[in-house]
Amino acid sequence: MIGVTILGTGNVAKHLFNACLASTEISIIQVYGRNAESLSYFQEKAQTTGNILTLAPADIYIIAISDSAIAKISKELVHKKGVVAHTSGSTPMKALSKNNRRGVFYPLQTFTENRTLNFKEIPLCIEAEHESDRVLLTSFAKILSDNVYEINTKQRKGLHLAAVFANNFTNHMYHKAKEICDTNDVDFELLHTLINETAAKIKDMTPYEAQTGPGRRNDTKTVKKQLKKLKNKNHKKIYSLLSRSITKTYGKKL
Amino acid sequence: MIGVTILGTGNVAKHLFNACLASTEISIIQVYGRNAESLSYFQEKAQTTGNILTLAPADIYIIAISDSAIAKISKELVHKKGVVAHTSGSTPMKALSKNNRRGVFYPLQTFTENRTLNFKEIPLCIEAEHESDRVLLTSFAKILSDNVYEINTKQRKGLHLAAVFANNFTNHMYHKAKEICDTNDVDFELLHTLINETAAKIKDMTPYEAQTGPGRRNDTKTVKKQLKKLKNKNHKKIYSLLSRSITKTYGKKL
Repeated sequence: MIGVTILGTGNVAKHLFNACLASTEISIIQVYGRNAESLSYFQEKAQTTGNILTLAPADIYIIAISDSAIAKISKELVHKKGVVAHTSGSTPMKALSKNNRRGVFYPLQTFTENRTLNFKEIPLCIEAEHESDRVLLTSFAKILSDNVYEINTKQRKGLHLAAVFANNFTNHMYHKAKEICDTNDVDFELLHTLINETAAKIKDMTPYEAQTGPGRRNDTKTVKKQLKKLKNKNHKKIYSLLSRSITKTYGKKL
Repeated sequence: MIGVTILGTGNVAKHLFNACLASTEISIIQVYGRNAESLSYFQEKAQTTGNILTLAPADIYIIAISDSAIAKISKELVHKKGVVAHTSGSTPMKALSKNNRRGVFYPLQTFTENRTLNFKEIPLCIEAEHESDRVLLTSFAKILSDNVYEINTKQRKGLHLAAVFANNFTNHMYHKAKEICDTNDVDFELLHTLINETAAKIKDMTPYEAQTGPGRRNDTKTVKKQLKKLKNKNHKKIYSLLSRSITKTYGKKL
């Protein structure tokens, strides 16, 4: 049985909490949060505390709070015997106090309130300073997910940056598509099947191979027509930069 | 029974051909293609011809060729009694010869060779000049798909432009993500689950609501750090423009 304390009450904390609860091999020792209201989600099913001085012993302390607060909270944990791991993609392991048994437990997923996720599918990226802590964090992660990876700080930063393109920017493309649908009086839902297929395709081929469209074909006529159709300046800028970038990728110049 | 002739031998033609073959309510009269090699895919299961003068009577002629060749080929069909419909998102119905019974049959999907698609899920966007042809094209479409819509030329152009953002640009974001993974020695496959969830989320909420990440949070510190980490000029440009665009969407300035 692995005893885990979660520090934080946001979306990552909630999803991790539920995944831990579902396992008979993990015991949640405590959930720590600064205000009572945010702890209400957890208190029926686990012990909670708003006072960091009252943290009980645990094997692992998971810090699931905003990046900017990680260093500070880790200093409050320097007398703990357990491993202290943060969950941030872009924060170095060494941002944690050097008096901690330092580690990282980075779940590569976008966590949204009230959405059910299959935690077993989420890639969990583990890093640890000491070999025994790496073993412990990995065992913990393997209880929760079928996809556990050892990833160092440099790789994790790269992964987080790649995720910004694959998730944040992709979602922004969906948003732009919806704006264009709204302007043209068509329902954004019509694009759902296409969006699904676009995401599915890159499991069977590389995105390089999967690319289609006027930019890929160097179809300057359609590109010019579509640029003209776009009235919003910001849409025009994005369309123009990305079309050029696609055409450049395939070795042609617009 | 609806008799259909397909003009063209590319991916759209192939997928449509297979969907028609699978129905007992549709009879494929002929497939037309300019060269014998491209017709070989079809000739075991249907009549094919490389000579447009030998087209037999059909209820519907579907033109599934490149946009720039649509107008020309439609002129070859002016003596046909059937409906002549093209499959292009960005071409007006009126690009077809006015001596045709003009229509559009636009399947909103990205068609890739050797990929199996569930045609029943593909939105089919129908337009026709005459009411009786609209009824015929709609009946035909409803045999093939559960998602049939009447969409005029203006709406269809908007939809096609939205699809460029939701499909072409999104796929390019995946490509950039893969390049960043490669540079940082991590496997792009780790992003598959995230990419899936990003696409799935916008069925339950708007992309506006679904947005996460440093741009959305106006987290200038992470944005600056990530911009610095990107060495490729083109990546920097895209990161910068899209982060600004996201931050602007949520009413804050970077």
